[in-house]
Formats: sequence, structure tokens, C-alpha cells
Amino acid sequence: MNQIIYLVPALGILGLVVMAVKSAWVSKQDAGDKNMQELAGYIADGAMAFLKAEWKVLSIFVVIAAALLAYSGTIHEVNGIQIHSSWIISIAFIIGAVFSATAGYIGMKVATKANVRTTQAARTSLKQALKVSFTGGTVMGLGVAGLAVLGLGGLFIVFLKVFNVVEVDSDQMKTAIEVLTGFSLGAESIALFARVGGGIYTKAADVGADLVGKVEAGIPEDDVRNPATIADNVGDNVGDVAGMGADLFGSYVATILATMVLGQEIVVEDNYGGMSPILLPMIICGLGIVFSIVGTWFVTIKDEKSNVQNALNMGNWSSMLLTVIASYFVVDMMLPETLNLRGYEFSKLNVFFAIIVGTVVGAIMSIVTEYYTAMGKGPVNSIIQQSSTGHATNIIGGLSVGMKSTVIPILTLAGGIMASYYFAGLYGVAIAAAGMMATTAMQLAIDAFGPIADNAGGIAEMSQLPPEVRERTDNLDAVGNTTAATGKGFAIASAALTSLALFAAFVGIAGIDAIDIYKAPVLAGLFVGGMIPFIFSALCIQAVGKAAMDMVQEVRRQFREIPGIMEYKAKPEYEKCVAISTKASIREMMMPGAIALITPVIVGFIFGPEVLGGLLAGVTVSGVLMGIFQSNAGGAWDNAKKSFEKGVMINGEMFYKKSEPHKASVTGDTVGDPFKDTSGPSMNILIKLMSIVSLVIAPYIAEPSSGKNAGADACCEQKMEAACCEKGGEMGKCDMSLCATMTKEECAAHCDSVGCSAEEKAHCMSMYGEDGKYIGGKCDMQKCKSMTAEECAAYCDKMGCSAEQKEACLKMIEAHKGEGGACMDGCKSGCKTKEECMKNCGEACASKH
Amino acid sequence: MNQIIYLVPALGILGLVVMAVKSAWVSKQDAGDKNMQELAGYIADGAMAFLKAEWKVLSIFVVIAAALLAYSGTIHEVNGIQIHSSWIISIAFIIGAVFSATAGYIGMKVATKANVRTTQAARTSLKQALKVSFTGGTVMGLGVAGLAVLGLGGLFIVFLKVFNVVEVDSDQMKTAIEVLTGFSLGAESIALFARVGGGIYTKAADVGADLVGKVEAGIPEDDVRNPATIADNVGDNVGDVAGMGADLFGSYVATILATMVLGQEIVVEDNYGGMSPILLPMIICGLGIVFSIVGTWFVTIKDEKSNVQNALNMGNWSSMLLTVIASYFVVDMMLPETLNLRGYEFSKLNVFFAIIVGTVVGAIMSIVTEYYTAMGKGPVNSIIQQSSTGHATNIIGGLSVGMKSTVIPILTLAGGIMASYYFAGLYGVAIAAAGMMATTAMQLAIDAFGPIADNAGGIAEMSQLPPEVRERTDNLDAVGNTTAATGKGFAIASAALTSLALFAAFVGIAGIDAIDIYKAPVLAGLFVGGMIPFIFSALCIQAVGKAAMDMVQEVRRQFREIPGIMEYKAKPEYEKCVAISTKASIREMMMPGAIALITPVIVGFIFGPEVLGGLLAGVTVSGVLMGIFQSNAGGAWDNAKKSFEKGVMINGEMFYKKSEPHKASVTGDTVGDPFKDTSGPSMNILIKLMSIVSLVIAPYIAEPSSGKNAGADACCEQKMEAACCEKGGEMGKCDMSLCATMTKEECAAHCDSVGCSAEEKAHCMSMYGEDGKYIGGKCDMQKCKSMTAEECAAYCDKMGCSAEQKEACLKMIEAHKGEGGACMDGCKSGCKTKEECMKNCGEACASKH
Repeated sequence: MNQIIYLVPALGILGLVVMAVKSAWVSKQDAGDKNMQELAGYIADGAMAFLKAEWKVLSIFVVIAAALLAYSGTIHEVNGIQIHSSWIISIAFIIGAVFSATAGYIGMKVATKANVRTTQAARTSLKQALKVSFTGGTVMGLGVAGLAVLGLGGLFIVFLKVFNVVEVDSDQMKTAIEVLTGFSLGAESIALFARVGGGIYTKAADVGADLVGKVEAGIPEDDVRNPATIADNVGDNVGDVAGMGADLFGSYVATILATMVLGQEIVVEDNYGGMSPILLPMIICGLGIVFSIVGTWFVTIKDEKSNVQNALNMGNWSSMLLTVIASYFVVDMMLPETLNLRGYEFSKLNVFFAIIVGTVVGAIMSIVTEYYTAMGKGPVNSIIQQSSTGHATNIIGGLSVGMKSTVIPILTLAGGIMASYYFAGLYGVAIAAAGMMATTAMQLAIDAFGPIADNAGGIAEMSQLPPEVRERTDNLDAVGNTTAATGKGFAIASAALTSLALFAAFVGIAGIDAIDIYKAPVLAGLFVGGMIPFIFSALCIQAVGKAAMDMVQEVRRQFREIPGIMEYKAKPEYEKCVAISTKASIREMMMPGAIALITPVIVGFIFGPEVLGGLLAGVTVSGVLMGIFQSNAGGAWDNAKKSFEKGVMINGEMFYKKSEPHKASVTGDTVGDPFKDTSGPSMNILIKLMSIVSLVIAPYIAEPSSGKNAGADACCEQKMEAACCEKGGEMGKCDMSLCATMTKEECAAHCDSVGCSAEEKAHCMSMYGEDGKYIGGKCDMQKCKSMTAEECAAYCDKMGCSAEQKEACLKMIEAHKGEGGACMDGCKSGCKTKEECMKNCGEACASKH
Repeated sequence: MNQIIYLVPALGILGLVVMAVKSAWVSKQDAGDKNMQELAGYIADGAMAFLKAEWKVLSIFVVIAAALLAYSGTIHEVNGIQIHSSWIISIAFIIGAVFSATAGYIGMKVATKANVRTTQAARTSLKQALKVSFTGGTVMGLGVAGLAVLGLGGLFIVFLKVFNVVEVDSDQMKTAIEVLTGFSLGAESIALFARVGGGIYTKAADVGADLVGKVEAGIPEDDVRNPATIADNVGDNVGDVAGMGADLFGSYVATILATMVLGQEIVVEDNYGGMSPILLPMIICGLGIVFSIVGTWFVTIKDEKSNVQNALNMGNWSSMLLTVIASYFVVDMMLPETLNLRGYEFSKLNVFFAIIVGTVVGAIMSIVTEYYTAMGKGPVNSIIQQSSTGHATNIIGGLSVGMKSTVIPILTLAGGIMASYYFAGLYGVAIAAAGMMATTAMQLAIDAFGPIADNAGGIAEMSQLPPEVRERTDNLDAVGNTTAATGKGFAIASAALTSLALFAAFVGIAGIDAIDIYKAPVLAGLFVGGMIPFIFSALCIQAVGKAAMDMVQEVRRQFREIPGIMEYKAKPEYEKCVAISTKASIREMMMPGAIALITPVIVGFIFGPEVLGGLLAGVTVSGVLMGIFQSNAGGAWDNAKKSFEKGVMINGEMFYKKSEPHKASVTGDTVGDPFKDTSGPSMNILIKLMSIVSLVIAPYIAEPSSGKNAGADACCEQKMEAACCEKGGEMGKCDMSLCATMTKEECAAHCDSVGCSAEEKAHCMSMYGEDGKYIGGKCDMQKCKSMTAEECAAYCDKMGCSAEQKEACLKMIEAHKGEGGACMDGCKSGCKTKEECMKNCGEACASKH
């Protein structure tokens, strides 16, 4: 073991320390006048109310799930296969859940402080406003990344000690890493509730507040008398801050973990006790935190005229570039010259190239998402154009923009998969994801900056501050909209690559060496998997409607039962409204959540790991497509509607708010809301959570037959090797498989040239028919085993076997005639597949003796 | 060869003769008064105009494609692999295209005759009206099925003669069947244009007629002065009659063909020269024609009060039941007791069970589709309910109904795949599809009845016939709406199963034995495949908008340039309008069509068959989901809107046409139109066409390495066999692979009990480590080949190899030290994979000697 391992939690702690400093700085800023503070106070209280209510429900789930995991940890053997688990996995699960919840808490806490302070800072200068809002975002980013790296790194060190791991390729190490998956499962489960529940919450509050407040009570939007208004503002923080934070916390942890699982399979000689492939992703992500901190130094502007977007881009690109450069030296220092994972050999330089691939994929996904959802670009303009002919054409326009927007991201993703695999096999796919996620702290800082600026603008408007203040917050808000879109692209890309890395890890732990969709049950799994994102989306969309109705009833009740609200004499029960909405959203997401959690368990235990692999592939492909489609359609509709605020030109005529085309665009925006804020982003969690659940159950469903086949293959191989060794390596040179592509003459020459023995050459020659054509593959003598001598002879003639082959076949049949033959006859009537028969047969034979 | 083969085209001819009789009967019916005849004449002329314009464009495509195919037929070897093709494939392609076009022509011709005659018959009785309209549908059904069976059966007989086929398992037979795929490719290509072009056409004409006629010129709907009105009415026939007909013609042919391809791989001894698995699907489908004719006898009602739907169901169920019963006897008579396809053994009874599975899947898909789109059922009612709160909620409701409607069909399909595979392997999946398609004649008769009744109602309304006539046509029309929905469910189910059958056939011809999504490039293919239905749908939806704009301009031009139209003095140029619409629709479907045709070619030739397999799986899964989603959402929106005609109750209040909820429902219907009539049904063709293109190019992309591996495997296997034979079958009994799941002691006992030789037992024992654990699979001595002696020793210690194994490894390394070792060193620096190295190595070594 090497001391470098302690660097990982140290870097996590560094991130958290910087976070604490920045958080304290934000708190110290001026929070403005009493009116502003009151508004901000309501939002902060509402956000805490949401968290409390959510945690109450989630704690029950966590306890039950932890108990189940603890029980599973006591099982040490299934179907004769040893399982490397421990009850400690439940502890890891609880810590993961708590860390994820804490990350959300930190983000919400600082966002609800930074919003009003940004408004106040905007009174002095744009530069200061950007500093406050971006620092708020940085706290969130560093909190998430710091907790993830500290949690993973710290637990890993603890587990190495707890399980007395001395060697990398040992059962103890397997147990340590298997237990660590519990941390990821805990994080991802909380992320599910945060993202899906939050998504339902924010849209329910939005619709509920509008329907009762604006329409029924006739009070303006964001009026403090409306009990649901605070819930609405809270919702922005819940969805865009806490939801996104938990989502990326989950991706970040899962990606590193999947790379570690694959790294454990790589056997290397290095200076780190063979652990370099396991440590690499943690080190890179730890360094990513450092360079994210460095990157924040570049996010600054000179004066009022400076471009805020450029400042953010500067920070983003510099932290990515620095991390990539640092990766080169880390890879070069830690890894040995060549690595080999599951038979795929690659150099350490290629590992670095895979990291670059991941970074590029993330960048392209962000850019494409921005193009399809940005104001003034082709796609949004086409929706504006189609709004002129009515609601229906607006909808059609948005749907087709969403569908078209899948093309480049999917091609990028496919190219990324192929390239990273080409460079470094499955480890390359995983490390590409890790490379992309390394600067998560910076990505999240930029993401969380958006809703903070949004809220700041809202507070400025509600407090009726002077126009130059609103101009500054509007400037930040506009940039925030763009970063929100690019953030979604990044989140989807990260979820997709993470799922693939988990997928690869799952295959390894489940002990299967292929997921063959040519097999009917696997194909069926692929179909069912592809369907899940559709039903999940439908349930999410419906849930928004139902939860909104609950909210409407609560708001009506408060107006009815609490006298004096309308006269500002009584304070509405914001907390109750928030609680109702929280409860409704959590209730409504039970069903989709259950689908994500339970489906892999059912499919895995009933149909086995390969069918589950097909299911996962289906979910991932369909989920990524539906996620991109829905998020981008929703984003494009939103900005098409927003474009009307400044007025748009359609066929030479200007249209503004309240015009007919604007009304059509509002329809599109309303349809797009649950798309982009509820069902679309939920796809990220769906695909990750199903993969991580599969990974956790993988050891319990690993098929014994798979292990047996591996044994049989090895057995065969070793017999060949042994024969080879006896002859002093003759056979190693005489690679007869090459003959398949040669003529008989060529093969004979080949045999002579590489020095095959006469016996070997004769074997090769027997694989050619009378006409000199290669027939080796055709004359499958194994088939003869289950035939009578007559059938076999006919078969040999039909397939064109050589005379030698036919003779050998018949001889074998003869040999099997005794108890072996009878055994085969028994198989014939009772067994479906050859494998099944062979297995039963062995036992039957054994019992006969 | 047996005479039974001649039964196939004979049954096809029987279908066509009955069709001719029924067609003549329809023509003889009274076509009503002059006014009615004039209206019907316009529609019939318009339909012919469409066909002429379409054929003109298509003939160019057919000539080019045929030339390419003819060229491909001259290639007889690729990468050293023999290709069984012939230039005659281009003839088959042309015949397929012509037959498909003819099937569409027959359907359109009779539908445009039967519509007005149904109206006239409705003047006397419901019974007579049903008879005329259903007979019209029957002509279409029998035409499609008859042409398909005649074409396939006839060409098969001809090709058997042309290529001098004497044996089933011969190159000649492979060529005959490979050439036959050209027939299917021709049929499916025309289907693409008929379905997609027709879908774009019908919606473009609809929108164009409404926008200029109703809105600009102020003339009522279906007014003869509107040049686009005829195009609109033609569109119904183009989409629902010709489009559906070509779609099912394609499915029908492709299904039978795929089953034949798989049947050719099955080696059997039967009374049909080993051809029974090839002939079976054709015979069953031929008999399906007979029983469809029988089924039509049950489609009759007693009086005005009788239930039309029940009569149609009676005909449908009886023909299905009779076909299934007949299948039992055919299967029992033709097939041998047991069959074996690619190592999967099954009995003939199980083939029959697979046929039942296919029939059940088709029935469930139809029923589920009806539930999700029928008036008065839950899903449509939920959309009506959500229309009360506006356009957006109506859209959200429809989208979520569409998404939810994928669940049961996908589970049914997945269950069907698994069950049919369980019964009879891949042949089971294909024959299930064939069983389902057997009664296509009846299915199409019921389908085509819908638009005929629809048109009849329209003519009755335009001719202002008495109310009892309209009541009768309304009755038929309502049933027609239901059958249209169930027909769509059947079409999707058939396309899905057909694609799977083609998929299985593709795998066989491409010479791959697995499609492993665990491999990165295959997974990338899966992603890209999944994306194609999204871009295809987006292009289709957009195309409707663009084509409608062209139509609007043409109608405006005619109003402007032809004086006297508005005063009934001049006849509008219907044909030009139809031609413009046809041209626009064909132009607009070039891009999606090109994607469907070219993508598999590009992917196949660049990335090889396995990646293409991944692509196909992605397209099929995503395409089936998008097809069901879009068709059902569109159907549900349509019927939600129609529900307002009779008034609907929402929250205790009645709403009718022109109410706000109705306006919202119209928005949904407009969005749903391209969904259900253009992009949704196009998914069927997309997935089938991409599969059939892949099947056609499969021989040219079959990987030599795949053949090589097969050869290597066979080589290894034969060495084992040979060793086995030498010892008189000892080794056959001593199945050492079983040891993988045993302890060392158990293994030793096993070896003794089955009588292994001492040498064999020693081998087995060497696979256990010091601690008695089985380590065979772990100690992979092949890896040592590329190591130095020191590395190998370290590796052996790490993996826990036994002392014997380690020694053997070191010995082998030593043996490789000479030129072999140097060769390996060369490999290390230059080659990516072990296989590549081994291959190069062989040559490098060879050159040294």
C-alpha cells in the first residue's frame, strides 16, 4: 500500500475547506433591506421545510433498504458461487444517502443566502453581483465534489483496513469494493427522490400558485400573500439546485466507483501495490477539485460592459484544460507501460487519450444542447415561426426539434464509446466518464449560478429596486438560462457514460462474458428495458398534474380558513403548503421510483444476468434518447415563449406578449415544463439507478453455468497447453486456426513453414474436403453425439466431411453406444439444450456407476 | 422434390380468382345517382392520378436499385468467402416492386368503386351496405395475400429450376433463397414510398384543402370547387388503403421469406426432400388465404339492429381459429419428429405451439390498441377530461396516454419472443410471425372496410341523402374507426415480429454467431440505431408541414389563374393538385427514405455485421416503441375530439363542438394527425426495410475473421474428438469441464467414477490450487505467451496457479524463446489485440523460414 491513497480524502477535505471559506464569505455579504430579507427568509424557510419533510420520508426508506442490504451481506454463497459481500454495505449505503442529502442541503442553504445578496450586490456593480452569485454556485460545486471524493476515498481506506486487504486480486479487495457500491447506491437513491420528487414539486407548485393565485384570487405573480408562491420559488431551488446537485453527486460517485471496479480486474505491477488502476479515477477527480478551485479565479469581469458568459467559459475551459494536463502526468506516473483488462491490452498513454475523449464528449454535448435551446438560434426560431399558425403547429415544431436534437449527441456518444474503447477497452470507457466528471465542481458552480441569478432577479423585481439593478440581474439571468441548458447536456452525457461504465462493471461481477441480443430472452429484455423510460416519463408527467391539484386545494383551504391573508394581516402557512407539495410529490414518485428500483431485481433474479444486461442496455439507450428529446424540446419551447417578451418577427410582422402566436407559445411552454424539469432530467437517474441496483445484486445472480463454461474453456485450453508444453512449444507455433482462410496447399505449406508435427499437419489436412475447400467449420462432429450411426453417416455426407472425419465420427458413436449412448438417449427426450443435456448426462452417468 | 410445392402458387391463384369474382361483383352493384357518381369519379380519378405520379418517380428508383443489385449479383467472392448470389436478384426485385404496386392499385381501385356503391346500398339496408363495403375490403385483402403467395411460391419454383437446386443444404439452394430476398426488398421499398409518401400526402392535402378552401375562399369542407378537396379524399385511400396494403404486403412477404431462410439451415429427413421447414410458412400462409375466404362467409348480419362489429369479429376469429387448426395438421404431416436449428433442438409439436404464440400476440396487440384509442374507454376519457383545462393539458394527456400504451404491447411482444423461442428456437420466432400473418387477407379486408365506409359516409353527406342512409353509414363508419385502430396494432405487431425473424435470418447469413452489446462498437451501433426512429419521425412530421405549404400555393394559383371555378363554370385541375401533392410528398420522403436504405449499408460495410446487428436491434426496439407511442397518442387524440360531436360530460357539465375544451381537443387532433398517419405507421416500414436491406447485403459483409474463428473452434474441437476417438471414447465420458463446479475431492471421485485415464485425472487435479479450490479458469496460461519468464512466474504466483501449471508455463516460455519469442516481441509493439498479433505472427514467422 502506498501513501498516495491518503491524497484522495485530503483533496476532498481541501475542497470542503475552500467551500466553507467561500460559504462564510457569502454569509458575510450585505443581505439588503428588511423587505428583501423578509422575502429571502420565506424562500429559505420554505426550502428547509421541504428538506425536513423529504428527509422524514426518506429516512424510512433508507432504514428499510439498509436492513435489506445488511441481510444480503450475510449471504456468502449462492448456487455454489462465493459472494464477496458484508453487512457493512448497509453502513456504506447510509453514509452515501446522508452525504447526498448533505450535498443537497449545502447547495440549497447557500443558494437561498446568495440570491438576496446577489440582488444587493447588483446595487453596486455587475462585477460584484457576479462574484456573489458565482461564489454561491461554487459552494455547491465544491460541496458536492468534496463530499464525494472524501466519502469514496475515506470509505475505501477504511474498508481496506476493515477487510484486511493485502492484495489487489484477492477476495478481500472484492469485498471492499462490493461494499463500496453501497455508498453509490445510497447516493443515487437519494438523487432519485431529489430529482424526480423535486421535479414534480417545482412544477406542481408553479401550476398550483398560478391557478389559484393569479386566476382565482386575482393577485399578481410572486405575491407574498399567496401561500404557494414561496413553494414556487422554493421549487426553483429544489429542482435546479438540489436536484441537479444530487444528480451529479450520484453520477460523480458512480463513475469513479465503476472505474474502480474495472480497475480491480486489471493485474499490474506498479509502485502502488498493483492498485494504480483503482486509485487513478479518484486521484484525477481529486485533482479536478483543485483545478476547479483554480478555475474560479478566472471567473471575473472588469466592468459593466464585460461579457459574463465569456468569464464563465474562461473558468470552465481553464479548469478542464488544467485537469487534462495534470491527468497526463498522473497517468504517466502511476500506471505501468501496458495494462490488460479482460484480454484487451492497452498502453498507459492510451488511458490518457481516453480521458481526453471523455472531456471532448462532455463539451460537445453541452454545446449541442445550447444550440437546440438557445434564443435566436435556428431551432427556437423555427418554433416561433410555427407558433404563428396556432397551438398545434407550435407543439409539432417543439416535438420535432426535440427529436432532431438527439442526432448529434447520440453520434457523439457512440463515437465516444468507440474511441475510448479503442484506446483502453472498457477501462477506457469508464475513465473517459471519470475524466469528463473530474471538473464536476466547476460544472456545478456554473449550473447553480443560474437559479441564484434567477432568484436574485425575482427578488429585485418584487422589491421594486431601481432599473440599473434589474438590468444587472437580467444580464446574469440570461447567462444563467444558457448555463442551465448546457448543464442539462452535461448531466445527460455524464449519466450515459456513467451507466455504460456501470454496465461494464456489472458484466464483470455478474460473471458473464457476453450480452448476446441474438438470444431471444436477452432481446426480450432489451425491448422491456426500452419501454421503461416511456412508462417512467408518462408517470412523471401525470404526477405533475395530480400534485398540482393537491396544491390547488391546499391554497384554496388557506384562503378560506385563515382570515386576514388578503389584507396582509395574517401570514399564510407557507410550511404547510410546502409540506403538502412535498408529500404529494413524494407520493407521486413512489411508482416511478419503484419501477427503477425493483425491475432490475425481478428481472435479474428470474431471468439471470444476461437478460438483465439486455434490460439495462434497453433502458440506457431509450432513456438517453427520451432524456435528450424531452429536455431539449422543453428548453426550446421555453425560450420560444421567452422570445416574445422582447418581440419577435414572423413573416415581416412583429409579435409581442398577449398576441395569438404568444398564446400558442405559452401552450408549448406548459407542455415543455414537465418535459424539461420533471421527466427529462429524471431519465438520468433512472438509467444510473437501474445500473447501480444491477451492480449491487450482480453477485447474487451470477450464473453458475457461466462459471462452469469458463472452467470448461480453461480446461480445454490447458489440455492444449499441456500438450504444447510436452512438445516443447511446437503447437504454439503451429496455429492451425489460420488454415481456415487458406487453401489446402497454402495450409500444407504453412504447416511445414512453422514446423508442425506430422500429426498436426494431418489434422489440418483432414479439414479440407475432396475438392480442396476448407470444411472444418462445417463438419461439426459434436452434432454426431446425439445421432445414430446412420444419421451421422448421412450428416457427414451431407456436410461434405472428409473420409477421415466421417470415420472418426462413426468411431465416436460406437464408443458412446454403451452407457454413454443410453445416457444421451435419455437427454434427447428430456432436455431442451445441448448444455442442459450434457450437464444432466454427467450426473446420470455418474449415478450409473 | 415433392409436388406439394405447387400447392403454394395454386393457393395464391385461388385467392386472386376469388378476388376477381368479388371485384366483379362490386363493380356490378348500383353506383347511385349522377351526383354521387360524379363525386366518386373525382376521387377515383384523383387516386389514379396519385398512382401514376408515384409510379413515374418510383420507376426511376427501381431501375437504379435493380442495376445496383444486378451488379452486386456478379460478385461471387468477398474476403475469400463465397457469395451465393446472382444478377437474377434484380429481376426478383423488380417483380417484388411491381407486385407491391399492383396490390396497392387493386386496393385503391376497388375502394374507390366500393365507397359510392356502399352509399347506394345503404339506401336499402344495413346488411347490404355491410356486404358491399366488406366485399370491397376483401378484394384488397385477397389481392395482397394472393399476389404475395403467388409471387413468392412461383419465384421459388422458378429459381429452384434456374439454379438447378437438387439438395436443400447446397450452395444452389442458398443462391435461390438469397435471390428471393430481392422480391422482398422490392416489395418493402415500394411500401416505404406508399406508406411514408402516402402518409405525408394525406395530411398535406388535408391541411392544404382546409387552409385555402375553408379559411381563405370561404367554401365549405368537401366542396367540389376546391381543387384540393379531391386530393383530401384521395388521401384517405392513399394512406389507409394503399399504404396499409403495401405495408402488410411487405410484412407478409418478409415474414415468409425470413422463415424460409431459417428453414434452409435446418437439416431434416422428410418426405419433401428436406424442404419441409422451408415450405411450411408458405403452405400455412396459403391455407390462411383459404380460411380467410371461409371467414368472409361469417361476416354477415340479420337486420338493422345487428351488431356489425360482432360480425367482423366472427369472421376474424373463425379464420384465425381455422388456420391454427389446419396448421396443426400441416405441421404434423410435413415436419419430422425433431428439428435442430443452430444447436437448438425442438419437436414438431413445439413448432405448432409457436404458431399459436404468434396468433395470440397479434390478437393481444390489436385488443390493447383498441382499448387505448377507443371512445368511451379510460384513456380517451382522460384526454377529454384534460381538455377542460386547455390546449397544453390536452397535449400532455395525449402524450402520456401514448407513452403508457407501450407497456402491455411491449410485454406481450417480449413474452411472445421468449415463448416462441422456447418452443422452437429462432425458427419458432419466425414461424410465430408467419402464423400471425397467415390471415393477413382477413385482417386487410377488415382494415380496408374502414376507409370505404368512411368515404361512403362522406359521399352520403355531400349528396344530402336521407337520414336513415346516413345513420347506416355512420354505424359502419364507427366500426371502421375501431378496425382501423386494431389494424394499426396488428401492423405494428407484424412489423416487429417480421423484423425479429429477419434479424435472425441476417445473423445466419452474415455468419456471425452472436451480437454482443457488451462490445463497445456494437453498443455504439445500438445507440445510433435507437436514434434513427427519432430523426425519421422528426423528418416525417416536418415533411407534412412543408408539403402542406406546397399544396396551399397550388390551390391559390388555381383559384387565381383558372377563371370560373367559384361559379362551377370551370373544373379545377384536380390532377395537378394531386400531382403537386404527390411530388411534394415524394420529395419530402427522400431524406427519411435514404436514411432507412443507406444507413445499414454504410454501417455494415464500415463496421461489419455485428455492429450492424446492434444497429438493427436499436432501430427495432426504438421504432416499435415510437410507432406504438405515436399511433396510439394520435388515435386517442382523434377520438377525444370526435367524442365532442355527441357531447361529453366534464366535471358534471356538458360540452359540445365549438366549446373551449373542444378547441383544445382539436389542437390535440392536429398534433396527432402526422403522429398516427405519417410518422407512427412509417416506423413499421423503417424497421422492416432496414432489416431486409441488411439481409440483402449480409453475404457481402460476412466477416472472414468470423469464419476463421469458427474454423479455429472446429479445429480445437476436432483435435479433442480425434483424441477421444483414439481412446475409444474414453474422453467423451470423462467430461472434465464438470469439475469446475466441484471440489478437488469430488472431482477426483468423479474422474474415477466415469473412468478417466490417469493422465486425464492428473490434468483435472492440476486445476486445483494448494487450498483445494478450483483455479482452472484463473490461471490463464495463454497470457504467459506474451510475457517474459519472470513476468510469467510472477503472474502464476499472483493467480495462484498450481506448481504443475507454473512449470508448464515456464516451459512454454522457454520453447518460445527462439524465433517464436522474437516474433511475439514484434507483436507486442505493433498489434492492438491478441488475435491480430497471432495472425501477424504466423505470417512473420512464416517469412522467417
